[in-house]
Amino acid sequence: MIDLKRDGDVFVLRFDAGENRFHPDFIDAVGVALDEVERTEGPGALVTVGTGKFYSNGLDLEWLGANRDRFEEYLRTVNALYARFLSLPVPTVAALNGHAFAGGAMLALAHDFAVMRTDRGYFCLPEVDLGMSFTPGMSALIQARLTAPVAHEAMLTGRRYTAAEAQAAGIVARTAAEDQVLPAALELAASLAPKDGKVVGKIRTDMYAGTLAALRGPVF
Amino acid sequence: MIDLKRDGDVFVLRFDAGENRFHPDFIDAVGVALDEVERTEGPGALVTVGTGKFYSNGLDLEWLGANRDRFEEYLRTVNALYARFLSLPVPTVAALNGHAFAGGAMLALAHDFAVMRTDRGYFCLPEVDLGMSFTPGMSALIQARLTAPVAHEAMLTGRRYTAAEAQAAGIVARTAAEDQVLPAALELAASLAPKDGKVVGKIRTDMYAGTLAALRGPVF
Amino acid sequence: MIDLKRDGDVFVLRFDAGENRFHPDFIDAVGVALDEVERTEGPGALVTVGTGKFYSNGLDLEWLGANRDRFEEYLRTVNALYARFLSLPVPTVAALNGHAFAGGAMLALAHDFAVMRTDRGYFCLPEVDLGMSFTPGMSALIQARLTAPVAHEAMLTGRRYTAAEAQAAGIVARTAAEDQVLPAALELAASLAPKDGKVVGKIRTDMYAGTLAALRGPVF
Repeated sequence: MIDLKRDGDVFVLRFDAGENRFHPDFIDAVGVALDEVERTEGPGALVTVGTGKFYSNGLDLEWLGANRDRFEEYLRTVNALYARFLSLPVPTVAALNGHAFAGGAMLALAHDFAVMRTDRGYFCLPEVDLGMSFTPGMSALIQARLTAPVAHEAMLTGRRYTAAEAQAAGIVARTAAEDQVLPAALELAASLAPKDGKVVGKIRTDMYAGTLAALRGPVF
Repeated sequence: MIDLKRDGDVFVLRFDAGENRFHPDFIDAVGVALDEVERTEGPGALVTVGTGKFYSNGLDLEWLGANRDRFEEYLRTVNALYARFLSLPVPTVAALNGHAFAGGAMLALAHDFAVMRTDRGYFCLPEVDLGMSFTPGMSALIQARLTAPVAHEAMLTGRRYTAAEAQAAGIVARTAAEDQVLPAALELAASLAPKDGKVVGKIRTDMYAGTLAALRGPVF
Repeated sequence: MIDLKRDGDVFVLRFDAGENRFHPDFIDAVGVALDEVERTEGPGALVTVGTGKFYSNGLDLEWLGANRDRFEEYLRTVNALYARFLSLPVPTVAALNGHAFAGGAMLALAHDFAVMRTDRGYFCLPEVDLGMSFTPGMSALIQARLTAPVAHEAMLTGRRYTAAEAQAAGIVARTAAEDQVLPAALELAASLAPKDGKVVGKIRTDMYAGTLAALRGPVF
């Protein structure tokens, strides 16, 4: 489902579950991997990457359909995942090998930077077209990481951003051809790995104190 | 004074009162029109547009001069108008056929998007040059919709933005020649009309919860 | 250490202490100069500029090393300096003749606008590489003045921005060759000097009420 490897100072967490939707087991497995990343002493950085056409499509709507009574608990778990990334004491880079949709797009925004594949794949918040809204924490995350006009358009129109459009909008830091997405993300992560993770975590946690509070607060 | 028509799924609210300053009767008439827009079931979107050289010049300083004792009440009414647009359960597009100054510029910012005329007309917040300041709600609105450097320059220098400059600054989404401003706004609105207005309203209201609270709070 | 002159309606506050680090005596002297600027009636604007290669390198780490027991008091004093600039009832322009690093970069951000030298000198927040973090007020200042993606990169990577990069990122308003930095800043300041300083101060203080509260609040 997921796979954690190390490439020099950089951990590579590969999501390997098709659309990489957030099944509770998937979220748990990611949490265990992040525990290992956090435990490691010395220089380090983390790259996450999906497989094939998908980085992640976000919420596991199939699981949710079968567990409607656990909706609130589930949203808390997802928000906690974003909060975990946003407060991780390690620089993080999302390698967007493919679609980053909805919750998967938000996961990308919870990283320090993202590198996006140029030939195909979109960054998209389709909630408005699915009849869904955002938890207060999700709104706070998106609005804290994007400029106001970009957050507005992304959240209210469900626009699908190509890599070039996402870079122009400041959603992703870099773009790369399919086979260069992971190498570019590794390079960026390696350049950040020498930084003191505790300091990175402290600065980031301070910067996004309000966002983290919202992600840890009520989901409705 | 105003005129509400329907073009397919799109309501067109035309301001037809010269400079379209916010006389209390003008604000009331807009409120009645928005009631009708809100009452309509099914797909829908709203375009607002002025007439001739003006989209709107904002506060009715002449009326205010004759009603100084009603200044606070008046500002509350104007802020409520912005809050009404910002929370409207319908996608909204401002067709800036001409000048959008001061309160009129803020009204444009209370829409989802704006299309601005290229050959003449400015977007301008001249308050600093008029010896005026902004209500907390107005500051919050402008700062919530523009990037920090743009809000700073617009509010503290009174810069007059042409359409091209406003688009580059992220103030307006599109620009068009005079006779294409309304058609472009209609096209954009029509593309948004299929979205569920309740969902649009919910997402937007959540995103701007703090701004709405400021617009509904004290004006001094 | 510092020198205050007047050029028409524009005050020029020159920092003339090498790297222009914030020794307590330096901060006191700047405060006295700002008192004089504030006392002056009529049109006015303020330009600050350094000397040689440095605009300012920020905190006086040497003095701090010898006065570790005064760390908290010192940070309060520095934050108060930023708050003083951010609430100054006069338009302000930083002429970045050279490096603006760390606390010096934040001082630049506390001005209305900055003009940056093109051939050499960087805008840089190197705290992450020095094992330092930001006070809540400093974080608030940086995040209030820069777009979200720019604040994120600047604070978490310690990137050194050239003048062209800083302008593209919206960190500085203008760039100029070495001998044109001060003239360009004077020209910009002179264009703002006719504005009513009390109105400028009121609008700016309202806009950044939250930032000012953070700068005046706890430093840890």
